Order: sequence, then C-alpha cells, then structure tokens
Amino acid sequence: MKNVERYQRVPVVHYPEREWPGKEIQKAPAWCSVDLRDGNQALVEPMVVEEKIEMFNLLVEMGFKEIEIGFPAASQIEFDFLRQLVDRNLIPDDVMVQVLTQCREHLVKRTFEAIQGIKKAVVHIYNSTSTLQRDVVFHMDREEIKKIATDGVAMVKNYMKDHDGEVVLEYSPESFTGTELDFALDICNAVQRAWGPTPEHKMIMNLPSTVEMTTPNVYADQIEWMNRHLENRESIILSVHPHNDRGTGVAATELALLAGADRVEGTLFGNGERTGNVDILTLAYNMFSQGIDPELEISDVKRIAEVYERCTKMHIDPRHPYAGKLVFTAFSGSHQDAINKGMHALLERQSKVWQVPYLPIDPSDIGREYEPIVRINSQSGKGGVAFVMDTFFGFKLPRGMHKEFADMIQKIAERQGEVAPEQIMEEFQKNYLDRKEPYHFKKCKITDFESAGDFTTVAVVTYTDHGVEKQFEGVGNGPIDAVQRGLEEELGINIKVLDYSEHALTSGSGAQAASYIHMMDQDRKRVTYGVGISSNITRASLRGIFSAVNRLYGDN
Amino acid sequence: MKNVERYQRVPVVHYPEREWPGKEIQKAPAWCSVDLRDGNQALVEPMVVEEKIEMFNLLVEMGFKEIEIGFPAASQIEFDFLRQLVDRNLIPDDVMVQVLTQCREHLVKRTFEAIQGIKKAVVHIYNSTSTLQRDVVFHMDREEIKKIATDGVAMVKNYMKDHDGEVVLEYSPESFTGTELDFALDICNAVQRAWGPTPEHKMIMNLPSTVEMTTPNVYADQIEWMNRHLENRESIILSVHPHNDRGTGVAATELALLAGADRVEGTLFGNGERTGNVDILTLAYNMFSQGIDPELEISDVKRIAEVYERCTKMHIDPRHPYAGKLVFTAFSGSHQDAINKGMHALLERQSKVWQVPYLPIDPSDIGREYEPIVRINSQSGKGGVAFVMDTFFGFKLPRGMHKEFADMIQKIAERQGEVAPEQIMEEFQKNYLDRKEPYHFKKCKITDFESAGDFTTVAVVTYTDHGVEKQFEGVGNGPIDAVQRGLEEELGINIKVLDYSEHALTSGSGAQAASYIHMMDQDRKRVTYGVGISSNITRASLRGIFSAVNRLYGDN
Repeated sequence: MKNVERYQRVPVVHYPEREWPGKEIQKAPAWCSVDLRDGNQALVEPMVVEEKIEMFNLLVEMGFKEIEIGFPAASQIEFDFLRQLVDRNLIPDDVMVQVLTQCREHLVKRTFEAIQGIKKAVVHIYNSTSTLQRDVVFHMDREEIKKIATDGVAMVKNYMKDHDGEVVLEYSPESFTGTELDFALDICNAVQRAWGPTPEHKMIMNLPSTVEMTTPNVYADQIEWMNRHLENRESIILSVHPHNDRGTGVAATELALLAGADRVEGTLFGNGERTGNVDILTLAYNMFSQGIDPELEISDVKRIAEVYERCTKMHIDPRHPYAGKLVFTAFSGSHQDAINKGMHALLERQSKVWQVPYLPIDPSDIGREYEPIVRINSQSGKGGVAFVMDTFFGFKLPRGMHKEFADMIQKIAERQGEVAPEQIMEEFQKNYLDRKEPYHFKKCKITDFESAGDFTTVAVVTYTDHGVEKQFEGVGNGPIDAVQRGLEEELGINIKVLDYSEHALTSGSGAQAASYIHMMDQDRKRVTYGVGISSNITRASLRGIFSAVNRLYGDN
Repeated sequence: MKNVERYQRVPVVHYPEREWPGKEIQKAPAWCSVDLRDGNQALVEPMVVEEKIEMFNLLVEMGFKEIEIGFPAASQIEFDFLRQLVDRNLIPDDVMVQVLTQCREHLVKRTFEAIQGIKKAVVHIYNSTSTLQRDVVFHMDREEIKKIATDGVAMVKNYMKDHDGEVVLEYSPESFTGTELDFALDICNAVQRAWGPTPEHKMIMNLPSTVEMTTPNVYADQIEWMNRHLENRESIILSVHPHNDRGTGVAATELALLAGADRVEGTLFGNGERTGNVDILTLAYNMFSQGIDPELEISDVKRIAEVYERCTKMHIDPRHPYAGKLVFTAFSGSHQDAINKGMHALLERQSKVWQVPYLPIDPSDIGREYEPIVRINSQSGKGGVAFVMDTFFGFKLPRGMHKEFADMIQKIAERQGEVAPEQIMEEFQKNYLDRKEPYHFKKCKITDFESAGDFTTVAVVTYTDHGVEKQFEGVGNGPIDAVQRGLEEELGINIKVLDYSEHALTSGSGAQAASYIHMMDQDRKRVTYGVGISSNITRASLRGIFSAVNRLYGDN
C-alpha cells in the first residue's frame, strides 16, 4: 500500500525469560475508574457537574474503590466538582478519589487546595518520558526529564506538610510504551527513592500504554520486565493504564495481568481519548465468564449502560462485548439450533454450571434477557423458529414440525428481512390455530365404554362444512381415533394420524393445552401438522385434527 | 459477584515449548473476507442481491483474493447471488469465491450446482467438534464426529468427478477452541488423509475461534501446537477464523499469526455474529502502522466505510480504530500541544518517516483529514486552540499569546461544551482584529531618514478617538517605535512593545500579513497582545498596535 514506507517497526524487547504466557489470571486486580478524567476529557460534550455526580455515584455503587475525578488544577469545573463531592459528603470512607497533576509548582499547590478535607486521596503526578516526546515536545535529555519527575515528588512532599489527610502517591511515566525500558526503570526507581514507599504505605507505579504501539504480547513483556526489575517491589502497586489504538486494549491488559500487574486504570465501555481507554467492564465480564469474581457489582449491565449513555451522550455499539444489543443474538440457523439444544440440556440435567454453545455467559446473569438471543432472518433455520415459538409463546413444536413451519417463515424472511417474534406467532396462528375452514369444529360429545378390558369411544361431532352445520358420529379406541374415523367416512377421505403430542401452555387449573397432530393424506401421500389449543385436552386434540384436515383438504 | 460459581475456568494447554511470544509479524497473511457470509448472516437486515454485489465489488477493489460468498445450498438468495456473479462475469480470474456447506449429501450436491462454471472455487466444509456440542447437540462420540468430516470429504470428491472447475478444499473443525487439541489434530489429519493435498495443491485447514473462550495467548498456543503437529504441514494452508466475544479478536489473530497461521478469515469493521468476526481492517492498518504492507488497498477508509454502512445498515463506532469519527481527535490540551509540536518538527525536519505523539499514523494516509484531529472542549488547553488557529485559519500565534487567547476559549467551553473552529475564529476576530475602538487607526504616512548610519522614522497617524478624527506625529527608529512614542504622548499613556512578530497569511503578491504585538501598560503592569492584518506589512503592525492599545485602555 501507498506510503507504507513512512512507517517503522516499533522495536521489541528481546526477553526470552518471560513467564507470563504460561500463567492464568487468578483474581481481579485493583480497579481504578478514570471515567471522570480520561473518559470525560474525550467527550464532544463533557459532563456537567450533575452528570459527573451521577457517574461518580454509579461507580461507587459498582464497587470501585479508586476513582480518578480529574485534573482539578487545570480546570475550574473539575476543581468545583471535587469540592462538591467533599461538601456534599459523597465520598464513602472506603473510596479513594484520585487527582491528576503535572509536576509544576502552581498546579501541585492548587491540587492540594482541591483535596482539602479528604481523608485519603491519590495524588497522581506524571510526565512524558518517550523518546519522541523528549525530542519533539520537551527538547530535554533523560536527566532533565527525570528531574521533572523527582522535582514533582519533592513538591508533593512539600505540600503534604500542611495537609491533613493521607496521600498515596501515583507516578506515571506517560508514553511508557514509547520509552526505552532501562530509562523507564531508571525514572521509576528515582521517583520511588525520592518518595520512600514501604510495604505498609505503598505507592502506585502506573505504566501506561498511552498509545498502543505494537502487538499486546510486547506490552506484557514490558510489564513483566519492569515487574522483575523494579527496586523495592513489595512497596509498589504495579498499575497499567492501557489504551486501544490497535483494538487490542483488553488483550494487552489481560496479558499485563499475567505479567504481574496489580491494578488497572480504565473506563466503562472503553470510553476515552481517541479509540478509548481499556474497557473495565469487558475485562470484568471476561473474568466472570471464567468463574473469577471480578469484585465489581456488574450484574445489571442495562442499568450501567443507561446511566453511561445518558451522562456521556455516547452510544454503545451493538456488537460491544456483553453490553451490545446484538451480542446475545444468534441469527444463524445452526447456532440457534445448538443454543436451543444446549438450553434444554441445561434444564434437563438441572446443571448449575452454565454451558450453552455460542453463549459464553447466561445473559440473565448480567441483567439481559433470553428473548433477544435468537432473531430470525433469511439466514436462520428451523432451530431458531422453534426457539422463538417455545421461548416467547410456550409452544414446544414437535421436532418433525420445525421444518414445515420454518419454511413458511423463511419465505417471509427472504422477502422482508428480519421477522419479529410477533409476526412468527401471527403466521402460526393463521396457518394452524385459525385454520378452521371449510370444516369448522363446533362441539363434541364423547362417550367412553369399557367392555372386557377394551375401551371404545363414541364421538358425536358437530361442525360446519362451508358454513352449513352438520353432525357425524365416529367410533374408535379413543377420542382421536373416533373422530378420525368419523371424519374419514363423513368427508370421504383417507387419513392417518402419524404422531400426536400435547403439552400444557400455562400452569394452573385453568391452563391451556396445545395439541399437535401429525397427519397424512394417504391418497396423495401428503403430510402436515395441525395444532389446536383449549383448556380441555380432548377438545385441543380435536381442534388439532380439524386444523390438519383443513390444511390438507382446505380450499387454499 | 452473584452467580460467579456458575462458570468454570476454560482449561489451557501446558505448552512451555511455545515460540510465538518471541516472534514478530513479518508480512500480511492471505486474507479471506467472510463479509457476505458471517457478516451478512448477522445483520438485522441481510443484504439484498444488489447490495451484495456492491459489497463484492468493493472487496475485489480492495484486493481480496478469497471471498466467501455464502452457504448457497441453504439459502435460495445466496444461490441466486452466486449465479449472478457467474452470469454477469463479476468474478475476476485471480479471485476465488468460497462457498460453505455442511457435510450432508444434498447440501454438497446443491453446492456443486451453485459453483458450476467457476474456474476455481473454495469448497468449505465444516462440522462442530467441541466437547460441548458433541454432548448436547449431536450426542455423538469422537469417531462419529470424525466420520461426519471424512464422509464430507468423500462427498466433495464424488461431486468433483463431474465438475469442470478447480476446487480447493477447506475444512473447519467448528468450535475448535472448545475442542480437545488431540482430537482437533486427529480429525484434521483424518480429513487431509482423505483429501490428499500436496504442496502444489494445498488444502486450507481453518481453525476457528468460533466463540472466544479465554485470553488470546491460549489461542496462540493452540495454533502453534497445531502448526507444529499437523501432518504434511507443507501441503496445508493454516487458517484462522477468530470471533470477538471477549473483545480480543484482533489480538488473538495477531498472536495466531506469530504462532504460524498463514491465512485470516474476517470481515470489514468486525461485522459478524454476536460481537462480530475479527476486523480485517484493523489488522491491516495495524500492520501498515508498522511499515508492513497489508497487501490490501485501504488508503481510503472513508469510502470503504461509506459502502459498508450503506450495504449493512450498521454504523461504525466513533472510537473504532482507524475508522471511527473521534479516533484522530485529541481533546486533551497536553495531547494537542504535543501533536502540534510533533507536526511542526516533522515539517521542519522534512522527515519522510511519520512520528507524531498520539497519532500512530498520518490520518491523510488513509483518506482522513487533519482538521478534526484537534477539537476544543473545556478539557482542552492552549495547544489545541493554537493548533486550530494555525491549521484552520493560518494564524501562527506567538507562544506567549497561546494562554491569553486559550483562556477566553476555555471560559466559553466551560459554559457550552465543545467550541467549533469557526467560533474560535469569531472570538479571535472580536477580541483582536476588530478591537478598533475607542482609538480607531485610519491611515499613516511613514517617512524614513538615514543620517550617519542611523535610521529615523517619522509617522503621521490619522485616527479617530471616540469617533472624532485626530492626527498625531511620532518619531522613532522604525514605524512601530515611532507610532508607539506618538501614541504615548497623544494619549498620555506609558506603554512598551515587549515583542513583535509577523508572518504571511497566504502566499503570492496580494498576500495578507498578520502582525502580533505584545504590549505592556507600564503603569498598571498589565500585558496583552494585539493583532492586525493587512496586505501591507507596516499597516498590519500599526493595526496590531492599536488592537493592543484598545485592549489595554479600551472601555470594555
């Protein structure tokens, strides 16, 4: 492609000692939400104070214990917002707010004004350390850049003297992924020597993937290398702050956790500058799907999504993992069929463990419904139609009937696109339940005799034939047999009931039953199903018989 | 979290022999688009034939050499579409269409009817092999499942006898990621033994991540293990078909390429069932950003996006890598500043290699514009405002002026949210260029004398003071000095010009110049900038002086 020669391979670490590829995620990291900072910053319409407070409250409810609320020294809005949180007592005792600042005297001073009265806050200082930014933005060498950071630490220490609350220091070598590893280590070690963290009073060392620069395994190598080489590691909380420029932010974070990261900074739904910050919800649901407690309360994704969309004015993509409108939807026929079978196996086995093909988790565990799982278009098959009839309307169509009915729906789908459940039900009604002409069943009197162990049933059936009321009598070994025989003689037809099934549609004493009659026209070798419903199971069957007869011998 | 005990860890491979984490992607894989199959299948409104043809033509233009067009045996629409491609001669000689079919006699037969007259086609057979699907969907053991696959191969061989064109076989053990590796290997080896590929006539072995089940490194391990153990590897094209349930489809694919995959099946923008198939565009742009030719023509992402959105009726998320509306946008002040500096460094050094902070690629290389890179909201800083003034309107504000002007914009942004470039220019106009009262410069006569090597300038200035025309004379060592001195005496003020700069706004002889005057009110120790424009550089400066004086001493 044109201009490809303008780009260069990002150098990778030679690091054969790596151990992360053999590890597994065992537990949730410490989560830090940066929704009110990186997330808010990247909005076309940043949140107003009341929206920020609603977002803050949501994050607290979800169980976030660390929440970056902004850069109060750089923005009056963020300063005022933080003061409101304090004045309105909105910060629970077990939640730390985090404030960002550059390492500049007047900004650090103003930052400490902003956190007055907060029991415990994270003061997050940063400076850019990458080769590129040293060169084109700062025109400084390594030592000068390092001095910015250690001077920043000194400023924080200085303002802490007159500060009442506890302060946890966080340092980010911003643009870490574009920084030589030895220099990143050097600056981090210099910062921690200047601060003096202990295992009891740790500091946070945050290694951002400010811009994703290469495949996510390289970030994992970088994190593991830092994890192994950082001085005084037991006094450090190793944090990552990934972005998503290459669409691999979630993966980079997961691999970084394998590589030894303790803490993750990210946002809901991956909001944030450019392609966004890493999506904490996807990370958390990924853990959940593996039986690892994400240590966040995320069982109602619809509510989280609703608050998020309202406050940020962003929309969640229909294919967004776990939260997107279409992600628990199967349009493919074979997928629908497998989901259908998997769900039934789960029910039959009364298994507590969720295992259903194509559905990594049970949508209802995160506040989503079963209903939209299966949607019917021209690409769908019989499994999906049967699933809809069962899940939405309670009709458990016999297996042999799936194709017959699905073919009718397929024709509609090829003509119009997606077919909604209601329309599927309408077709079912029209083609089966309401198939009452020309032979319209009206009523029936059944008499059963038992004689020498044999049962004989006499059925007297009243019906209309093209609107004209008629009556016939049939005799057989049960109601279906009796009515079938009666009909054969009355109408001069030759039919056979191949199969029969019936189930309750609802529970309780007034329950409706649905009856499915598989019938063959023996002269023309045609088969069809007929369906009837009634609160009386016999009447349901007889309606099913008439439905089948009308389908085989009706005028249309 | 509630119900976490319903989920189990997916078992991983113990595979310390892995080599992929030490490798780098060196070249583009063979790409196969499944937009017309997996992509289309998952649409609420599947494409109609004309849309499919437009999509097919786009894919061909983009340089795809393998395009799966559907499951013609299962859908009349897909059958008809394929026949149209043939009848209308739309398949170039170097493009292979690929058709999917289950391993069932009547479907394979119908598939061969569909590919009549095609010179070279991929016939893609599949069956589901995972433990879960064997158990709940098929109720079959390993041998029975294997027989489905080898029977499928036999069917394809059988129909090939009477088929004119060339056929490449592709086999997918569907739900590979849920299949025990030894069984996946066993079934793949059995299939290839039945088919008999050679290095000259390879077959495609496609290992789908039908559902993403765990972290992407595990998929890479699985692919490398298969790559190493597959019999007759030199006769196999090893293909991957990743999905995105955990939001790591791109990463899984990249790691699979490190692990030895030769070929990738995916879609544009990651369309596809549930969370989608892997996004081939992101993969390709990721390669491009590293100087690796993606071997696709993707230099106009806007056109690709336009056709995609129209045909699929899906929308591209504003944070979608490379294509999203916001991904080349920086709202953050420090990011804007760094981009600004990086772009200037690039220009100054006339560097061919793209290196700009926060922008992995030059947006113009993929058909995007520079303009929306920087957008101004209340979170933005002075760098962004200066960038907008420069990029949109050509005003290169002196560094010292950035903060003064950005503060005015910040106030507006805090009130209203995002500030459009036009509004920034309006403010600039109002506060600087149109700052003409109460002292309104009208005209000036400049006379320069040279005497014994010294220059003396006499300026006679006509202006209005609150609407009343007046005149003064000033003498100095140049026009600015002369007018300044004249003004001091005329108005009884005490000012100093601290700095001065001027540049052409446009090129050519009728070019306008912009002049920036940094002025101090020495009594009140207040400073400001004034700006003037004119096609005459002297007049521009004098307008700048009056702009500054009006800002310092004006009524408002």
